[in-house]
Amino acid sequence: MKKIVLAPDSFKGTMSSKEICGIMTEQIRRFYPDCEILSFPIADGGEGSVDCFLTAMGGERVAVTVSGPFFTPCESFYGLVDGGKTAVVEMAAAAGLPMVASRPDPERTTTFGVGELILDAVSRGAKKIIVGLGGSCTNDAGCGAAAALGCRFYDQDGESFVPVGGTLSRVARIDPAGLRERLAGIEAVAMCDIDNPFYGPSGAAHVFAPQKGADEAAVRRLDAGLRALSAVMERDLGISIAGLPGAGAAGGFGGGMAAFFGAGLVMGIEAVLDTVGFEAAAEGSDLILTGEGRIDGQSLRGKAVAGVARRAKRLGIPVVAVVGDVGDGIEEAYDLGVSAVLSINRVARPYEEVRGRAPRDLAAAIETLMRLGCIFCAKK
Amino acid sequence: MKKIVLAPDSFKGTMSSKEICGIMTEQIRRFYPDCEILSFPIADGGEGSVDCFLTAMGGERVAVTVSGPFFTPCESFYGLVDGGKTAVVEMAAAAGLPMVASRPDPERTTTFGVGELILDAVSRGAKKIIVGLGGSCTNDAGCGAAAALGCRFYDQDGESFVPVGGTLSRVARIDPAGLRERLAGIEAVAMCDIDNPFYGPSGAAHVFAPQKGADEAAVRRLDAGLRALSAVMERDLGISIAGLPGAGAAGGFGGGMAAFFGAGLVMGIEAVLDTVGFEAAAEGSDLILTGEGRIDGQSLRGKAVAGVARRAKRLGIPVVAVVGDVGDGIEEAYDLGVSAVLSINRVARPYEEVRGRAPRDLAAAIETLMRLGCIFCAKK
Repeated sequence: MKKIVLAPDSFKGTMSSKEICGIMTEQIRRFYPDCEILSFPIADGGEGSVDCFLTAMGGERVAVTVSGPFFTPCESFYGLVDGGKTAVVEMAAAAGLPMVASRPDPERTTTFGVGELILDAVSRGAKKIIVGLGGSCTNDAGCGAAAALGCRFYDQDGESFVPVGGTLSRVARIDPAGLRERLAGIEAVAMCDIDNPFYGPSGAAHVFAPQKGADEAAVRRLDAGLRALSAVMERDLGISIAGLPGAGAAGGFGGGMAAFFGAGLVMGIEAVLDTVGFEAAAEGSDLILTGEGRIDGQSLRGKAVAGVARRAKRLGIPVVAVVGDVGDGIEEAYDLGVSAVLSINRVARPYEEVRGRAPRDLAAAIETLMRLGCIFCAKK
Repeated sequence: MKKIVLAPDSFKGTMSSKEICGIMTEQIRRFYPDCEILSFPIADGGEGSVDCFLTAMGGERVAVTVSGPFFTPCESFYGLVDGGKTAVVEMAAAAGLPMVASRPDPERTTTFGVGELILDAVSRGAKKIIVGLGGSCTNDAGCGAAAALGCRFYDQDGESFVPVGGTLSRVARIDPAGLRERLAGIEAVAMCDIDNPFYGPSGAAHVFAPQKGADEAAVRRLDAGLRALSAVMERDLGISIAGLPGAGAAGGFGGGMAAFFGAGLVMGIEAVLDTVGFEAAAEGSDLILTGEGRIDGQSLRGKAVAGVARRAKRLGIPVVAVVGDVGDGIEEAYDLGVSAVLSINRVARPYEEVRGRAPRDLAAAIETLMRLGCIFCAKK
């Protein structure tokens, strides 16, 4: 084999996608020392997304001081790739749940810093902004980020303010002029792997706010705020996000990305693979390896395996999914383009016992795969 | 792939080797419908050995009524293969532990019926007798079997008798004339996978008699009997079995096979593969599949995987071991000729939970293997 492409997701709780690429590379080299190996460690839009792009594409990690979740300064970062034309921002870097671990409060936290990250990227000339939604501590529907970029929010007395989760229903009017000017000619994309609507029983507040520290009463207030805001957004921004799948992602930032920034909401894996130029890079390879902690027929959508397989199929390149557990119904994976599924499990023991040996078991699985490759290719 | 050879051992406690061959065949056919598939379900000399030979070589299963472990008639059988020239006898069919389940007693049980099976085969013209040692309820060192074939045992009063485990020390003289006459020109082979000596701390009585119902005192008596007998055997039969590895197999039947029948003691897998003409049959195949319930570096000797791999290596044919659990140190397997090891485990769950799904998991593993075969062979 002359060229192999690696595009695994992380195995949650055991190995990062970068670690996995390293182990795969080491084993492949034992059998094909001269093989060209391209690594695309996949992230899903949450923590690690920036590194994912930087590893795959090269680029610059930009450090910036921005407002943290409680409006106090914090060290943050984003990535510039594609010669500075594309910026990758993970909202967790300025509004992440771990940043407020000791006092989470989705009624008071802001995405203002996320807007500052975007502003910095734009001021450096980025023309495309990819924002990874995931792991947020906020429920402000992206109003903070929009404010940082020049959007003005007024209450019914005409007072300008920066809305947070707890003050969304105070928004009486939105003036996007400054924002629109700043973002003229900028394309925004939100990486978002969930379908939840902006508000309602399966909306941002009811489903996710409890994990962010909201009690029942707070959840009801947050949900009412989102509902009220969406009406003002529709009137003043000319876009209805009430029915938009994914609008409820990241405390309503999904909806905000669409309404304030005109962003499309796309699956993280699709954004990653398109941005890194996966298809062009993979062209002409003999084999593509993908994988994740568990595969089954029910949860393929939006997963690394599915995204990679679809592209591999178009290219006519075999793709092997190397996974932890294999569930039922994986015929669907074969339909998508997966050529074969290989589990790293080698002993019948419970997960708690084997998770520690996952790196070793992954190495052994790749060794088996390479050995089989040598066998079956031998007669070429 | 045009020709695939299957030679798996059983997965103890989950699937017989015949079942495994069936599952493998079914999955291979899905991907290579026209592939020639040869099945050699491997048995280790114990129960199932006769069927193993019959499946691999064709032949006749002969039903005979013989003496059971307590000298009462029982239905038994053996196999005739190779046009009737070779007989395969499993001693468990006439002296098996399950036959005395309710009252096991290695001081009173006999291998007389095993001798009758051999006699029947010889009277039908068999020139080679392969006896599978394993699963026995006896400790008579094969004296019963020898008696059935014409060997005479005398006590010190010159009385002739058929010794059992409890009366071995009464043997004062052995006259093998009748036996020698009957077995003239007959080659005997014993399949035996253990190394234990005839008597002593790691001999037949001390190591195996407790499983056959002997208490501590009985074990000591049985061991003394074997020790006394070996002296008489040496004097009257002209062969010393005291130091022969494997003489302690099957209640001393290993030693008896050597002393009474001039048999060689060979590993079951070696006898099976040589007798079925494995190498000649496997020649020209694209792939050999073997396997067993567990593989590790420490326990390869005498195992199906090792025997098959050694022959595959001579033939230059790749061999994949499809196994349950994979232990440590399997580099040794690669040295022996195994090309790759594939575990059937697909979920990190304890054995008790997954043993029921082993047939399904094996099928999935073979599917993966065939899918990889299709990938890697595609560019041929």
